[in-house]
Amino acid sequence: MTEKDFVIRDVKMLKPSGEVVTANIHVSGDKISKITGGEVTDGKIIDSKNKFATPGLVNAHTHASMTLFRSYSDDKALMDWLQKDIWPIEDKMTPKDLYWGAALAAVEMIKSGTTAFADMYGPCMDEVAKVVDESGLRGSLSRGLIGFADSGERLAENVELYKNFHGAADGRITIMLGPHAIYTCSPDYLKKVAAEAQKLGAEIHMHMNETQTEINDCIKNYGKRPFEVVAETGLLDLGMLAAHCVWLSDEEIEIIKAKKVRVAHNPGSNMKLASGIAPVTKLLAEGVTVALGTDGAASNNNLDMLEEIRLAALLAKVDTLNPLAVPAAQSIQMATENGAKALGLQNVGRLEEGCKADIVLWDMSGVEWQPNYNPASLLAYSANSSAVDTVIVDGKILMQGRELKTLDEEKILSEFNSCVKRLTEN
Amino acid sequence: MTEKDFVIRDVKMLKPSGEVVTANIHVSGDKISKITGGEVTDGKIIDSKNKFATPGLVNAHTHASMTLFRSYSDDKALMDWLQKDIWPIEDKMTPKDLYWGAALAAVEMIKSGTTAFADMYGPCMDEVAKVVDESGLRGSLSRGLIGFADSGERLAENVELYKNFHGAADGRITIMLGPHAIYTCSPDYLKKVAAEAQKLGAEIHMHMNETQTEINDCIKNYGKRPFEVVAETGLLDLGMLAAHCVWLSDEEIEIIKAKKVRVAHNPGSNMKLASGIAPVTKLLAEGVTVALGTDGAASNNNLDMLEEIRLAALLAKVDTLNPLAVPAAQSIQMATENGAKALGLQNVGRLEEGCKADIVLWDMSGVEWQPNYNPASLLAYSANSSAVDTVIVDGKILMQGRELKTLDEEKILSEFNSCVKRLTEN
Repeated sequence: MTEKDFVIRDVKMLKPSGEVVTANIHVSGDKISKITGGEVTDGKIIDSKNKFATPGLVNAHTHASMTLFRSYSDDKALMDWLQKDIWPIEDKMTPKDLYWGAALAAVEMIKSGTTAFADMYGPCMDEVAKVVDESGLRGSLSRGLIGFADSGERLAENVELYKNFHGAADGRITIMLGPHAIYTCSPDYLKKVAAEAQKLGAEIHMHMNETQTEINDCIKNYGKRPFEVVAETGLLDLGMLAAHCVWLSDEEIEIIKAKKVRVAHNPGSNMKLASGIAPVTKLLAEGVTVALGTDGAASNNNLDMLEEIRLAALLAKVDTLNPLAVPAAQSIQMATENGAKALGLQNVGRLEEGCKADIVLWDMSGVEWQPNYNPASLLAYSANSSAVDTVIVDGKILMQGRELKTLDEEKILSEFNSCVKRLTEN
Repeated sequence: MTEKDFVIRDVKMLKPSGEVVTANIHVSGDKISKITGGEVTDGKIIDSKNKFATPGLVNAHTHASMTLFRSYSDDKALMDWLQKDIWPIEDKMTPKDLYWGAALAAVEMIKSGTTAFADMYGPCMDEVAKVVDESGLRGSLSRGLIGFADSGERLAENVELYKNFHGAADGRITIMLGPHAIYTCSPDYLKKVAAEAQKLGAEIHMHMNETQTEINDCIKNYGKRPFEVVAETGLLDLGMLAAHCVWLSDEEIEIIKAKKVRVAHNPGSNMKLASGIAPVTKLLAEGVTVALGTDGAASNNNLDMLEEIRLAALLAKVDTLNPLAVPAAQSIQMATENGAKALGLQNVGRLEEGCKADIVLWDMSGVEWQPNYNPASLLAYSANSSAVDTVIVDGKILMQGRELKTLDEEKILSEFNSCVKRLTEN
């Protein structure tokens, strides 16, 4: 046992099966070395009697730096929101804004129990990579590619990003290629992306089937639905993380299954933007990997994955009029194990011997955790993210007793608000 | 200005119009005496520079003592849940359980910004009245009346409760009669309740149109829909707070309008129990008073009204596929001004000169409140209830800096858990 190793003692923990047991979690290096019962007195101990240990939450779809635009424009129609408010202010962004926006997002994510996230934004995703490196989080980053605005340099940036950062920060940073969506990228452009991805061995992160308008326009333009068009470009053969997937035909679900597409369900964003309700129970029944994401803070409006866990469970029930749909443990699994799979991470998302030590300890002392018949159910249906006490990634403690260990919250807040001030002047 | 009076200085406050302004709120006795701009240096001052003042939240439908059953039984079909799990354990309850269950609920409500609640439960609602008195909250209480199990003594208890407690605790306690639902009360029984209510001048709190099964059974039994049956009993002429109202015909909406029924919408419970989606935008467009409620903690699973604000806004949008449905300020209004109207409270639910000083101060220092373009939108879409800093009811401070002033949380937790232990031991 090295100096860095420790034991999370006498903690209630969520097993991959969904069962909750009391155990000691031994962390050695970046891994869970073993899980034991009984007394532990040796070594560095984190006493966790009234804590609940879960795998770290994985945000499978976000745009981290958009924290800068939280509450800037709400309760608007999608195109008004994008064209009149968001795009004009995004045009003013500098690399510095990307950095401090993502830094604030990192603070927010750690404080709400997120340990890994899939980010699509840009330009200058190296700024976000810097934040991932410094914060200790895991990030799967992609340069968002608006094909219609790309004469080649954006795709080249994403390729460069891959070459410079894929596997960086002890493997905590991974890179995907990020063709934005079928309504911003032509099939020809998607083929170019596929060719580059193929050369690199990179996977794909893309918005798919988010709104009815997107589907209708796709059919009008190409005579087919989005997954059918994208399948023909070869992109789906490379491994895809598909965000949203709200409006799907049965044929498209067959494509998703056949191509092993991983779906990032974003219930908060889909509700707030009135995009629709994704057929989550159907996808899960078909064995599809469904993960959860917040989307950006301009359309959610936070990066709180516990809210997505709750919304995913509640929305599936009311949508199917079946109170048994997406029970608590399954919704948590979507935000942990399935999230890790969605990001292409190996041995992440489960509290199990040999897995990466990405762990959240939830403080169960609040009244909303009483009585404590079932911690998983309390987490999914009652607690809020202020109960996040300790966050561990790769065996490193990023927060303990709600005190951040890797990031300077005060400095980040101050720099972030300077960026906001500059962006909103004039 | 008396010793008790104070000024909430330099605070961002939500006006009844939905607008946010910076002001000083002067509290004198139980009322807001005036709202001013400029500098204040005199008297007792609560400095509130980075706080957001809203009216206290009103939980328009709950069963407070059911905190005892939080997480006891989740993800089950309604009848399994009720008949196999909830009813057997409820049968074991003593007055002491009612008291400590409601006391824990009071802690939870104050800590999440609720200042008034409508409670239907029983027996022994005088225990809940005691909690309302001691906590400093407002409570509108009713003895839940299962007509099929009542040979008269339950209705008599509710009448007795009214006589003993209506207007008690400086008017903070009000009493309604609580016929449970159309599927547990015959029309003849409802007529008896109406007759007693008429004699007392009492209003009615009742579950209405919660599930499809309820509607179908009602039509089978009486040849009419629930609101049509209930209208004929005279109950609607007495003033009704109707909880749920998920499945409504156009004719029933006409009845609701004509009889000025106030609706308590419970999005969290309706989603979790898969009851359905209430036609909230339609009711609001018709001018109906729609308030928000959590329902009991066994079917939510918390008493957090900020979650209901968020869910009401999000669910209305995705249900109508209209991102403009139920904007932030309207959803907050449902949980404040409309809630007060639903409970039959006068001059409550608005931050306005002459209104009761029922005020919540939200701490806006957390990252999820950054940037701060729009506090109302941040409250509705980003914050969580751990931001509740100060809670004031009737001019009395119930919590400040998250420290409870009227209740002993530690003692309540300990007694509550003793009750839980006894209830769950065979």
